Amino acid sequence: MRNIFGNALTLTIFGESHGECVGGVIDGLPAGLEIDMDYIMWEMTKRKSTVDISTTRNEDDVPLFLSGIKDGFTEGTSVAFIIPNKNARPSDYNELQGIARPGHADYAAQAKYEGYQDASGGGHFSGRLTSVMVTAGAILKKALQNKGILVSSHIKNLNGIEDADFDWNKVIEEMLDLNDKEFAVLDEEKGNLMIERIKSAREEQDSVGGILETVVYGVPAGTGEPLFTSIESEIAQAMFSIGAIKGIQFGKGFDFATMKGSEANDPFYVEDEMIFTRTNNNGGINGGISNGMPIVFQTVVKPTPSIGKVQHTVNFETMENVEIKINGRHDPAIIHRARTVVDCMTAFVMADLLVQRYGNRWLI
Amino acid sequence: MRNIFGNALTLTIFGESHGECVGGVIDGLPAGLEIDMDYIMWEMTKRKSTVDISTTRNEDDVPLFLSGIKDGFTEGTSVAFIIPNKNARPSDYNELQGIARPGHADYAAQAKYEGYQDASGGGHFSGRLTSVMVTAGAILKKALQNKGILVSSHIKNLNGIEDADFDWNKVIEEMLDLNDKEFAVLDEEKGNLMIERIKSAREEQDSVGGILETVVYGVPAGTGEPLFTSIESEIAQAMFSIGAIKGIQFGKGFDFATMKGSEANDPFYVEDEMIFTRTNNNGGINGGISNGMPIVFQTVVKPTPSIGKVQHTVNFETMENVEIKINGRHDPAIIHRARTVVDCMTAFVMADLLVQRYGNRWLI
Amino acid sequence: MRNIFGNALTLTIFGESHGECVGGVIDGLPAGLEIDMDYIMWEMTKRKSTVDISTTRNEDDVPLFLSGIKDGFTEGTSVAFIIPNKNARPSDYNELQGIARPGHADYAAQAKYEGYQDASGGGHFSGRLTSVMVTAGAILKKALQNKGILVSSHIKNLNGIEDADFDWNKVIEEMLDLNDKEFAVLDEEKGNLMIERIKSAREEQDSVGGILETVVYGVPAGTGEPLFTSIESEIAQAMFSIGAIKGIQFGKGFDFATMKGSEANDPFYVEDEMIFTRTNNNGGINGGISNGMPIVFQTVVKPTPSIGKVQHTVNFETMENVEIKINGRHDPAIIHRARTVVDCMTAFVMADLLVQRYGNRWLI
Amino acid sequence: MRNIFGNALTLTIFGESHGECVGGVIDGLPAGLEIDMDYIMWEMTKRKSTVDISTTRNEDDVPLFLSGIKDGFTEGTSVAFIIPNKNARPSDYNELQGIARPGHADYAAQAKYEGYQDASGGGHFSGRLTSVMVTAGAILKKALQNKGILVSSHIKNLNGIEDADFDWNKVIEEMLDLNDKEFAVLDEEKGNLMIERIKSAREEQDSVGGILETVVYGVPAGTGEPLFTSIESEIAQAMFSIGAIKGIQFGKGFDFATMKGSEANDPFYVEDEMIFTRTNNNGGINGGISNGMPIVFQTVVKPTPSIGKVQHTVNFETMENVEIKINGRHDPAIIHRARTVVDCMTAFVMADLLVQRYGNRWLI
Repeated sequence: MRNIFGNALTLTIFGESHGECVGGVIDGLPAGLEIDMDYIMWEMTKRKSTVDISTTRNEDDVPLFLSGIKDGFTEGTSVAFIIPNKNARPSDYNELQGIARPGHADYAAQAKYEGYQDASGGGHFSGRLTSVMVTAGAILKKALQNKGILVSSHIKNLNGIEDADFDWNKVIEEMLDLNDKEFAVLDEEKGNLMIERIKSAREEQDSVGGILETVVYGVPAGTGEPLFTSIESEIAQAMFSIGAIKGIQFGKGFDFATMKGSEANDPFYVEDEMIFTRTNNNGGINGGISNGMPIVFQTVVKPTPSIGKVQHTVNFETMENVEIKINGRHDPAIIHRARTVVDCMTAFVMADLLVQRYGNRWLI
Repeated sequence: MRNIFGNALTLTIFGESHGECVGGVIDGLPAGLEIDMDYIMWEMTKRKSTVDISTTRNEDDVPLFLSGIKDGFTEGTSVAFIIPNKNARPSDYNELQGIARPGHADYAAQAKYEGYQDASGGGHFSGRLTSVMVTAGAILKKALQNKGILVSSHIKNLNGIEDADFDWNKVIEEMLDLNDKEFAVLDEEKGNLMIERIKSAREEQDSVGGILETVVYGVPAGTGEPLFTSIESEIAQAMFSIGAIKGIQFGKGFDFATMKGSEANDPFYVEDEMIFTRTNNNGGINGGISNGMPIVFQTVVKPTPSIGKVQHTVNFETMENVEIKINGRHDPAIIHRARTVVDCMTAFVMADLLVQRYGNRWLI
Repeated sequence: MRNIFGNALTLTIFGESHGECVGGVIDGLPAGLEIDMDYIMWEMTKRKSTVDISTTRNEDDVPLFLSGIKDGFTEGTSVAFIIPNKNARPSDYNELQGIARPGHADYAAQAKYEGYQDASGGGHFSGRLTSVMVTAGAILKKALQNKGILVSSHIKNLNGIEDADFDWNKVIEEMLDLNDKEFAVLDEEKGNLMIERIKSAREEQDSVGGILETVVYGVPAGTGEPLFTSIESEIAQAMFSIGAIKGIQFGKGFDFATMKGSEANDPFYVEDEMIFTRTNNNGGINGGISNGMPIVFQTVVKPTPSIGKVQHTVNFETMENVEIKINGRHDPAIIHRARTVVDCMTAFVMADLLVQRYGNRWLI
Repeated sequence: MRNIFGNALTLTIFGESHGECVGGVIDGLPAGLEIDMDYIMWEMTKRKSTVDISTTRNEDDVPLFLSGIKDGFTEGTSVAFIIPNKNARPSDYNELQGIARPGHADYAAQAKYEGYQDASGGGHFSGRLTSVMVTAGAILKKALQNKGILVSSHIKNLNGIEDADFDWNKVIEEMLDLNDKEFAVLDEEKGNLMIERIKSAREEQDSVGGILETVVYGVPAGTGEPLFTSIESEIAQAMFSIGAIKGIQFGKGFDFATMKGSEANDPFYVEDEMIFTRTNNNGGINGGISNGMPIVFQTVVKPTPSIGKVQHTVNFETMENVEIKINGRHDPAIIHRARTVVDCMTAFVMADLLVQRYGNRWLI
């Protein structure tokens, strides 16, 4: 369905990077769900990441709700919102007319839309559209939190620098802490090293990537649907709608390749009349359905393709080989911002699966 | 949509491991598409993998087409088929009543369906349902091949043993060769080592996993849709409907974490009035849309959870801690069989995206 | 979505009139819903209508459930079933090769599928496929009945002969009575006149049509969704999937054309702390949403197009004008059979809307 | 899918009558489709119907396109637009707090949304949302016209006054003429009588309804899909999303009830190597698929429920019986405005079916 995602809850996305606005429509929310604008704005703030290491472009990304909300509560009908592009500067990109920026969708879009696409700043393929995902997902992230279900990510790895692991004995506390941080690491020292690495990349006119680790805590066992609507299928579909993400693994993921079955299987046990697993190699999911343990997955965020270094590429209008040097405001890393998008879209997916299971009144 | 996958082409799946049959319904095929039963049966044979290393259960998995096909050509209406479960032996599983097999969906299904699920052999969560994916996908795999688009996977890594890499100068030849092989490796010697490793695992009553690498060759630049219907989103959703798959990465995937933007970006160049990239780190996809280079991705297949070793687990009916030893026919590895499922579902996804772009008559 | 209907509950349909079978897949049912085969078979019997006036073809239409049901209860996964075509006689139709039967889909199907369609007996366009709708819908009709929601139709008008109107003071009783009848009229005398008229039509080698009136009783106010998922939109989409139906009207329907607003509006009133309307001109629906009054609509069933009289038409293969005389078993009326299809599909629609509102566990 | 309509082309709708705006998102349009704002504005003008007989509320309904269009051509990505509510006057409705206006969705919405709905002026259930349908549909109506496919309606019957019938020998001319008229009748004299009748209704503080007849001319035989995506199913689903429409009939519709099969069937004949039917009782559709003849259907538009007369009703907040007198700007008839909504939504449906058949590039 192209720009429409979800089943019982749907999100329709529109907009281009340097157009008038980006925006979305959420359908399927129950009537009477409270909209916490402060909560949404904090997620939006994390996505903009105003710390020094990030872009200086400040768009004051305040979503304007156009429908479906009255006096701070949902009305039960479709909720539309836009995020105006206040600071659009298409002139930054004019010199790029016809140029395929390496690592970007420019050429793929040209092949698809044959010149009619809005090319400025990536147009519909810009990371700008993730602000729509954050707005929509933040509403559900808050709703889930009210039901005792937490979603939180940290930067597991930035260009080789590894963060600490979750301490599962105090994971709730750690997850709440992470939600409060703009730069999401468990170990602040490692975080400082990561920030240094990002600054070095900027000085080199280059960029860096990394790995996010996401936990969903508190999902009741038995959530998710078989086959194509498995938790893994739905989360993966959502994650790959985020431009920079090129891989996802649940639980031990690619490490399963060198494990034996006897090591990989998570032994179940009963304690206090509840069922747990000793290990959580499968990331809380068996057969696509939650088994009650924390859902854990990792996503890889590639280095930002916009770099200041000279690059070889083509002009697809003149069909000539050319060199480019991308000027303007560019992030030497986006992983600390992508993390918020991952959190919010994960919340949207989990809410959709829970609504499919329990009906949308459950969200209230 | 639970058991329904796809957009312009849809696949509806039903059935349980030890029920009467498994089956599917394909909707959206054009009228006049030739059905090559030999082609389908070869894919089904590879899925069963009758080599020594595999299960001895032989189900003669012949799909019976119930509708939508006349004289070997599609009629344009919905194509339904079943694959009877000839050799079902539920008695093998009776002793497992109430037992959560570690690594399986038994407990998650219990939590979801509260005792009403068909538990025998995994029921609806059994790998048996992948025969439906193979039947449906094989039809599209053949149709794409007729249009010059090839899909093929090899076992990139089995429990640490690495296969050779594709030789991109003769990749078409290698892909066609792989399609002819039951055990899909580029380097036969490495293949023999892998087979030995699988046999050892069997002797240890254990199991092994690995990594598949899949190539889609010949997809025109500009294929795929933005955001939620990106090639990556659609392939990932399909791959995670296959029970054993726990991770997917496109192009360099998780290696992007330690690369710089200047290394990660694929420089474009023009040659003979066509556009290529020097490297293919992005796996042929930019912004979710094909750029004309081969589409490349890897999936990790976890070790088969059914193992002969004694395991700790629970009986969720009595809520007691128990030990189990799973008898019966079990694969010490399924990666060589999963590869066919991956090939066929990938073909289904790519055909769906191409039909969305060009209409379904394009498949003829 | 072509052959797939529904939102939270979906029905996928396949099959052709003279193929091996027709069948369907229901997805979205909760686990633990009891399947009452007697109830289903009584609906199937009414669809076959074994009374003299109907076709002599007896197919013993027993749905065979292939998946999703164990020990008489749903498992929570997709429920597939087939209805074998035991008595298929394609030879009856051989002489019709290339002939467009007037009033049938033969020529439209030829234009669409260009010769690949299964033409025998209408193929995928045959009324035979309504047995799939009855099987699927009967499951939900019974489930709704268990929740106090009744669906029932009568033959309001057969070729000009009018049945009595519902007596709203004893509508529950009348609806239950209708469900027990093979020929659904409120006034038996009028029913006998209708049967005579049908017999006359048969003697004339002709056929007759009529109007069905359907009531859904007990739907809680507030059921249905805005706009495209209104009760009216969903019921109408379902009704027009039944080949012979060419019109639908809710409440006063086409009579609204000559009414004033002051006559058409249904005045609300409060009694015993509940809200009712004095009249029910709007058929229980305002803005697409139920207002708690009985839902009432009428559908027109055109005369069976298969008649014994000589008819002028074309052979679309030779592109010649020809005459045909259709032999074989044909119904001089199908309205008394179509009534069951209308009942069952209406139940499916209402169940889908209620599941969207309350979640699928509500059905249990 | 609640507020989302369509298959290959989708329309997502949002907004409330007295909120900031109403709007929509169209997905699935090809890149390079020209947007003719004059054409859209003429359809919007007809929907507002500035003639004396209509409301004096003038909203200058100019759709603002937010995305997906550049230099007057579609970009291939999702097209979002809003129509601001410039002249919203919620104070008109304050006195109606808690009052269920007869014939309106107020009480049904209350039952559904439990007080969270936007009640002013009908909120999400207001006829105001049809301006979104007109904007979206007008784009496709123009695109179809460029391909030789015309959509046009006339007021067949207004409160008993009958317009002339189409003259099928000059139907193209008549359809183009109708498109140019604000008050769509074939016979101007009858039109004047209708206008008089509307004015009388206004003087009586009452309202009138009527019947629209719609023709789609030029649809190639073989368009439409079986069963649930039949032309009839899709058009009916769309039509019943328009609040005032309570019935639809294709071809002879409810008149089939008193016809014999020999009268109802449309005889085919060959002329100049093309196939036609002598009559068009089936309205150009057999088995849900077009047979190449003009598609003809009628919809009934109930009298506007907002009338000045005193009406009996309830206050659902206090649960008391009350009387109301609705002040403010109200249309004594909306059929002449609804006609444009019917035209535009019909165009959207037909374009969707044609795109499913031929791919979306066919629209260019």
